[in-house]
Amino acid sequence: MSPTSSLQPLERVRVAVDCMGGDHGPSVTLPACRAFLASHPNAEVLLVGTEESLRPAAGWSRCTLVPASEVIEMDDAVEVALRRKRDSSMRVAIAQLKADDEGHAAADVSVSAGNTGALMAVARYVLKTFAGIDRPAIAALLPNARGGFTKVLDLGANVDCTAEHLLQFAVMGSALVSALDGKDEPSVGLLNIGEEAIKGSETIKRAGELLRAAAAAGQLNFHGNVEGNDIFKGTTDLVVCDGFVGNVALKTSEGLAGMLTQMIKQEFSRTPMSKLAALVALPVLNRFKARVDHRRYSGGALLGLRGLVFKAHGSSDAFAFERALERAYDAARNRLLDRVHDRIRDTPAVLPTAPDEPAAAHAA
Amino acid sequence: MSPTSSLQPLERVRVAVDCMGGDHGPSVTLPACRAFLASHPNAEVLLVGTEESLRPAAGWSRCTLVPASEVIEMDDAVEVALRRKRDSSMRVAIAQLKADDEGHAAADVSVSAGNTGALMAVARYVLKTFAGIDRPAIAALLPNARGGFTKVLDLGANVDCTAEHLLQFAVMGSALVSALDGKDEPSVGLLNIGEEAIKGSETIKRAGELLRAAAAAGQLNFHGNVEGNDIFKGTTDLVVCDGFVGNVALKTSEGLAGMLTQMIKQEFSRTPMSKLAALVALPVLNRFKARVDHRRYSGGALLGLRGLVFKAHGSSDAFAFERALERAYDAARNRLLDRVHDRIRDTPAVLPTAPDEPAAAHAA
Repeated sequence: MSPTSSLQPLERVRVAVDCMGGDHGPSVTLPACRAFLASHPNAEVLLVGTEESLRPAAGWSRCTLVPASEVIEMDDAVEVALRRKRDSSMRVAIAQLKADDEGHAAADVSVSAGNTGALMAVARYVLKTFAGIDRPAIAALLPNARGGFTKVLDLGANVDCTAEHLLQFAVMGSALVSALDGKDEPSVGLLNIGEEAIKGSETIKRAGELLRAAAAAGQLNFHGNVEGNDIFKGTTDLVVCDGFVGNVALKTSEGLAGMLTQMIKQEFSRTPMSKLAALVALPVLNRFKARVDHRRYSGGALLGLRGLVFKAHGSSDAFAFERALERAYDAARNRLLDRVHDRIRDTPAVLPTAPDEPAAAHAA
Repeated sequence: MSPTSSLQPLERVRVAVDCMGGDHGPSVTLPACRAFLASHPNAEVLLVGTEESLRPAAGWSRCTLVPASEVIEMDDAVEVALRRKRDSSMRVAIAQLKADDEGHAAADVSVSAGNTGALMAVARYVLKTFAGIDRPAIAALLPNARGGFTKVLDLGANVDCTAEHLLQFAVMGSALVSALDGKDEPSVGLLNIGEEAIKGSETIKRAGELLRAAAAAGQLNFHGNVEGNDIFKGTTDLVVCDGFVGNVALKTSEGLAGMLTQMIKQEFSRTPMSKLAALVALPVLNRFKARVDHRRYSGGALLGLRGLVFKAHGSSDAFAFERALERAYDAARNRLLDRVHDRIRDTPAVLPTAPDEPAAAHAA
């Protein structure tokens, strides 16, 4: 069914890394890059940052140092990132994805732990969106009870989404699942307040119609409406929602997980007897902790741009940043950009059919 | 600051119970009522249901049997509940709240575990909303890390809310916190995707303006924007949101809690050693389980109606239904209806100022 299922994986993957982004900058990004290079023999990295910060990486193999004189701070306004800091490590890293006149780009994917608003704005300005995509979206991976990850988008980039935006999210998100999990036709759920098609806001009802039409045309595997609990159940591979709703769902989950963790700690340290129980239960509790460790799935993908940009969580430590690098590597290797591009082109029923420019990095 | 802080608690509280509602009907509601009566000497109950179902309760003290010939099923459409089953236990229970010509009602509060859509429709039809309130809202109590409960509304009754609706939720929710926790000026958070006032959808920004104006006029204690994680942190006493967003946040939390519980079970039953650890840790894990037991806070209050209606979770067992009865009792005893009414009347800056009819149950 999918025209992209025959795409061959990339043999080498070039990852442009914004080494200055995030709460910890090079002290986290450099060790993560080094570990990532060691475990991924087909990877190359372009380390972007100030010359002094990158000095420890001089001489690493499969590694190019790309100087940038400025740093976007975590609390810089979008305007500052966009207009004043034109030589920021974030922007230079993203610019590595731009194809030259012959269609060649320096990197296949870019990763930053920098501030989300700035990253979205800079990526959109530098790379532009595909024809048919109004606004890029952020997709995240949330662990589910089936032992996998449910992909959810949008997570905060777009408020006041239209039904057409939600359809675009479904199209792009399907490509993401295909690239990360190898599923040709991932199931898509529309986040709603009930499973019945008649429920929800006018926007949601109309999005349901568009999704059913796209499914009838063989362009999507639309499961139907899903509810908030289905995200963690893993009912569908993908859940699409308005960025406002998605952000609230994500943050609420983080809050609940934090509270439950705190409560478990409190209960196990209440009495001498419970402290003893904690000692015995420690290996089990640690395995549980590792499974729900948010560092394993922090960050996400920016979809809809003419270049692959991955966001790591601002508070990432080296372990979390390395996971983001791996995810970006997998996505680029499995040609997520081409998959998104092909899927958008193949959804003519609802999306614009105007001839599209070639994708930034892998144009023919 | 609050004009209602001088309200005296009711000396006796009459609770009308829809005994047929919920997944289990009288087999759950009757034992719950009996236990509730035993622990609340100032309570009276009006048990509403078919004559045969209520037979076990014949002769209970402080208890009146009120016959109703029909039962609204959990999957009955709203139209069926409203138009065809006019003598349903749900409707008859709610009708006990209606004041007669002299301003006297048979009950102070009504509780049902019946289907939410039907309950909302029937309650609205029988009781009507206060002037200034367009649509009733559902408020729920979610446990927070401070050991208390954050009140959240709306949870699924209203999609496509306007800024004015969100202000109404804040006004009514403040009255709920006052009645349940005895706080005169509970703090109110507006659920958003960032703390800054400039974030969010147009509706949210406008709601922020209305809430700030109401706070400046001394009618509310507006904390500002809060994010999803603040619900479980307990940052504010009350969180207001669109019913769509609230429902997704609630269901997502339920899904996450379910997944984490399942993971803990899996980890503790993985090996003989971890099963042994489970035995040792059992008392601690059980205490944890009791703290997060959703039966302690299932259900919620329907606010904005000219009568107090509480909703218990459809799947309530006797323990959960008794908690709902207690909450309804506390709210009625602390005159939630008058508090809501007074607060609505005292928010003339934004809400209509037309003279209001007296509240259903406690009119002078």
